[in-house]
Amino acid sequence: MVKRVSLSQAACPVARALDVIGDWWSLLIIRDALEGVRRFGAFQAGLGIAKGMLATRLRDLVEDGILEIAPASDGSAYSEYVLTAKGRELHLVVAALRQWGEAALYAPGEDHSVLVDRTRGQKVARLALQAADGRTLQWNETRVRHVAAV
Amino acid sequence: MVKRVSLSQAACPVARALDVIGDWWSLLIIRDALEGVRRFGAFQAGLGIAKGMLATRLRDLVEDGILEIAPASDGSAYSEYVLTAKGRELHLVVAALRQWGEAALYAPGEDHSVLVDRTRGQKVARLALQAADGRTLQWNETRVRHVAAV
Repeated sequence: MVKRVSLSQAACPVARALDVIGDWWSLLIIRDALEGVRRFGAFQAGLGIAKGMLATRLRDLVEDGILEIAPASDGSAYSEYVLTAKGRELHLVVAALRQWGEAALYAPGEDHSVLVDRTRGQKVARLALQAADGRTLQWNETRVRHVAAV
Repeated sequence: MVKRVSLSQAACPVARALDVIGDWWSLLIIRDALEGVRRFGAFQAGLGIAKGMLATRLRDLVEDGILEIAPASDGSAYSEYVLTAKGRELHLVVAALRQWGEAALYAPGEDHSVLVDRTRGQKVARLALQAADGRTLQWNETRVRHVAAV
């Protein structure tokens, strides 16, 4: 995708986040890394992505501090890609995409993967926005407070 | 962005969601629509996007049932783009991107816009994954249960 405007200096965190991860492949790589994929070949096999495109995405994610390169966990010569703390925090973005997809894009009864609680195996609850005092906030109960123009 | 694999039939809701909204511009359009932007010219002015690119994105978002075309709210001849119920549910995806961006991509003290509770003006709480029984779940306390291959 050609970026016509750089958003890396934006005052909107949504825009700045998309500048870093706003690419279909990048988020799928992060999704797979959250599930424990670590090797170039494993990302490639899982995603069906061309090697060059995968290499570029991985390099960018390392440069942006979302993945880091680690020695192979089995002592072999292959290096591995592991999420940093900053990268792991994207699990909420991936979960929000998942829950929206589940609710909006599947026919009733159509099979899909499900995010479950690791200890009990039960489906994770739907994310909800909460006010500072704990009230659940619907989409029209929030507003964006913009930074004053300097 | 060239999509080398269509994800529209994927069994993973993250992939299917990205097939529909996994584009930098689409999510920025949705962000602005959530803030009340409705007119072609207003989207264009806010985003600094080329007219043709904006027209394509708006058409796709209407086709995918995320936006719908409505008569102008002021009675003029211009049509407006309004989020559907399915589109409004993306507020959680936009909020998750925002909160990750705030935490990961700004220097201490650097200004950015903030999502606040409309009635009290206080910053919205950080999203958190919860188990069915209410426990907060960290990134490594969940797993994906895949659909059995047919």
